[in-house]
Amino acid sequence: MDMIEIIRKKRDKETLNKEEIEYFVKNYTAGKIPEEQAAALIMAIYLNGMEEEETKNLTLAMAYSGDVLDLSGLGNVVDKHSTGGVGDKVTLILMPIMAALGVPVAKMSGRALGYTGGTIDKLESIPGYRVNLTEEEFESQVQKIGISLIGQTSNLAPADKKLYALRDVISCTESIPLISSSIMSKKIAAGAGSIILEVTCGDGAFMKTKEDATYLAKSMQKIGSLCQKQVVAVITNMEEPLGYSVGNICEVIEANRVLKEGIIEKDLKEVIFTLGAYMLQLAGKGEDISKNKEQIEETIHSGRAYQKWLEWIEAQGGDIQYLQNPDLWEKANYQLEIYAPKEGYIQKIKARAVGEIVGSLGAGRQTKEDVIDKEAGIVFYKKVADKVEKGEKIAQISTNKKEMIEIAQKQLLEAIEIGEEEPKKFPTVLDIIE
Amino acid sequence: MDMIEIIRKKRDKETLNKEEIEYFVKNYTAGKIPEEQAAALIMAIYLNGMEEEETKNLTLAMAYSGDVLDLSGLGNVVDKHSTGGVGDKVTLILMPIMAALGVPVAKMSGRALGYTGGTIDKLESIPGYRVNLTEEEFESQVQKIGISLIGQTSNLAPADKKLYALRDVISCTESIPLISSSIMSKKIAAGAGSIILEVTCGDGAFMKTKEDATYLAKSMQKIGSLCQKQVVAVITNMEEPLGYSVGNICEVIEANRVLKEGIIEKDLKEVIFTLGAYMLQLAGKGEDISKNKEQIEETIHSGRAYQKWLEWIEAQGGDIQYLQNPDLWEKANYQLEIYAPKEGYIQKIKARAVGEIVGSLGAGRQTKEDVIDKEAGIVFYKKVADKVEKGEKIAQISTNKKEMIEIAQKQLLEAIEIGEEEPKKFPTVLDIIE
Repeated sequence: MDMIEIIRKKRDKETLNKEEIEYFVKNYTAGKIPEEQAAALIMAIYLNGMEEEETKNLTLAMAYSGDVLDLSGLGNVVDKHSTGGVGDKVTLILMPIMAALGVPVAKMSGRALGYTGGTIDKLESIPGYRVNLTEEEFESQVQKIGISLIGQTSNLAPADKKLYALRDVISCTESIPLISSSIMSKKIAAGAGSIILEVTCGDGAFMKTKEDATYLAKSMQKIGSLCQKQVVAVITNMEEPLGYSVGNICEVIEANRVLKEGIIEKDLKEVIFTLGAYMLQLAGKGEDISKNKEQIEETIHSGRAYQKWLEWIEAQGGDIQYLQNPDLWEKANYQLEIYAPKEGYIQKIKARAVGEIVGSLGAGRQTKEDVIDKEAGIVFYKKVADKVEKGEKIAQISTNKKEMIEIAQKQLLEAIEIGEEEPKKFPTVLDIIE
Repeated sequence: MDMIEIIRKKRDKETLNKEEIEYFVKNYTAGKIPEEQAAALIMAIYLNGMEEEETKNLTLAMAYSGDVLDLSGLGNVVDKHSTGGVGDKVTLILMPIMAALGVPVAKMSGRALGYTGGTIDKLESIPGYRVNLTEEEFESQVQKIGISLIGQTSNLAPADKKLYALRDVISCTESIPLISSSIMSKKIAAGAGSIILEVTCGDGAFMKTKEDATYLAKSMQKIGSLCQKQVVAVITNMEEPLGYSVGNICEVIEANRVLKEGIIEKDLKEVIFTLGAYMLQLAGKGEDISKNKEQIEETIHSGRAYQKWLEWIEAQGGDIQYLQNPDLWEKANYQLEIYAPKEGYIQKIKARAVGEIVGSLGAGRQTKEDVIDKEAGIVFYKKVADKVEKGEKIAQISTNKKEMIEIAQKQLLEAIEIGEEEPKKFPTVLDIIE
């Protein structure tokens, strides 16, 4: 097989067959195909697209480029993936609820670059939490208490890792077949039986419109069906940050409050209950979505979800005193409250701008080497459509970077729009793709 | 400036400005832009094209990536370029004719990969000929005798050299803006005042159709006009090998015979007289193309072109005894004559197949490191439309590779089609683009 000919075929809009895709993925991962040839092929894929069968073959080739977990012994493991948002603490809350309801949770999460840390970084905010278990420890914990969540092992879909880094430097990130195969390859390698996807759209998401999000969701669903994995996708609105906090420790505190006290923002509830209800269905724990939502409500209010949360964190070495008494967490050195500059209704809290501000406060990483400041973040006291009086407290900024406070204050006031009329509030869950 | 953004623009069919193109060419040449980013940009250019202004800017940026010769002191230097053919000894014959007619010839030629060597390799068949003169020697020789032809200096358009090698491994050779900017950048760097182009088309050429060749010719002409260089392009037919020989020594012998004895194949004459007549026009030596052709005829038949040929080769260290007495050349170890398997008219001599056979006999190079066998080649005794009797000699194969003789014989017989009807012979010069 010849890489020059493989590039030529894609350049000329021909279809690559399974052997050609496998040849490329295998040899690129092994360092036998130079970066320039991979880059040319990826740009040709970006511009000329890929057919469903090609995308499936790319997904499987990347999934099998490294270790593939076999979790079939653990029961019907349903994996969950989100294309990302601002204030996304869904996994932290949803997973112990699912485990409490008897759905085995054996999940790996990445340490994506972004405005704030990923789920793994947030969990590491809890002193002692171990993100690196061996495969044996991981599976044994799931068998024992029904839940474990760890970082991605280094040999999970290494082809995807290499291609992802390449796409980043050659302006080829925003391609539906490349995004879907990247996500799905990791889910397949991580041993998912079936998959619930949250595909976000809007200002704070990678996909800007509902149409694009739906297109991506359907692409992943199609790959799933070609790979014998059932996939349900939930399209959600990411115009304002999800819930009331954006950061690392502050998001863990919000998640803990949901589980411990049952206090939950409306948008966050809508997302968690919808994803959870379909996860129960995928796991064979209930066909009726409304009844599944009732089960979730009951599991939170009975305290069973909170018990599972404590049990999980403790099993993985985390100090649950911080969950029982969140005041134990260290505060950032600098706190600043933000007040409404005028009376009115909150029209917008621009998710993307908020994400960027929180990133600049120290909560995210731009390169793999950056160290995240877990204490940095923003907590909101108001959400879109809330009425505010002039001078009323809207949000609080926390940071250890003194030089950033004034800039962040100015930027945050620009990101929050206040107007006279009460805005129509749109639903957070926009569509379900079954 | 940011390379990721430059790639994104071309990916999204936006126009790159002069600064962006210069940034890319300069930093890529300096090794500051990694191969994968260059590859992604080149593939995006291949698929999304470039506007005339972008192609001009790329041409100039590549031309000025290294040394640019200033030949203005030598008079109106007209450079000549051919997109390549099989049996192409045009430069060897045309240049001394031009010099004899008072057109200063100061030319650099490449050592392209291909079926046979390039002009430089053919000149090196003459024992003693020095292809590497210093810039001073080069210019001083032109001043003294009106002609010099050397190899490309190592710092001539280094950006083009690097991009050319890259395009080769990423399936991006056949792109009109990339081909035209590559050719024109070298011509501009080599100090051309005006340029005569031979753009070949057909079986043995890079461009397969007259339409493609015309499109390429017009693209180069447009670049030329944007760079204040007058360009005339001659579109020629490359269906059968040009002249009667294909190889290195055998082509020098054919060129020598044209100059010495005035014996010239019809197709070769058509090309040389047309190119020469327009070169004279470009050099300000005659407006009337027919009269220019008469001047060329006269220059050959008077022996003045042959005298200039000897003067040139001798000035550059070549042993002109070989030109005065071509029998001095060593013959290849193995010679095989090819006879007509039946009576009829020669319908086709497939140029590309002949080129490949001659390459397999040892006359070309596939990689820069390959050593050319100057003695290998094929001499034809018949051309398309000639009548042959069964058993009549059509061609002679020369090689030092014993193991190749039988294969070459079989392949050559397949490349020569004999049929009953006399075929219509098409002209060799198909069009002039002024």
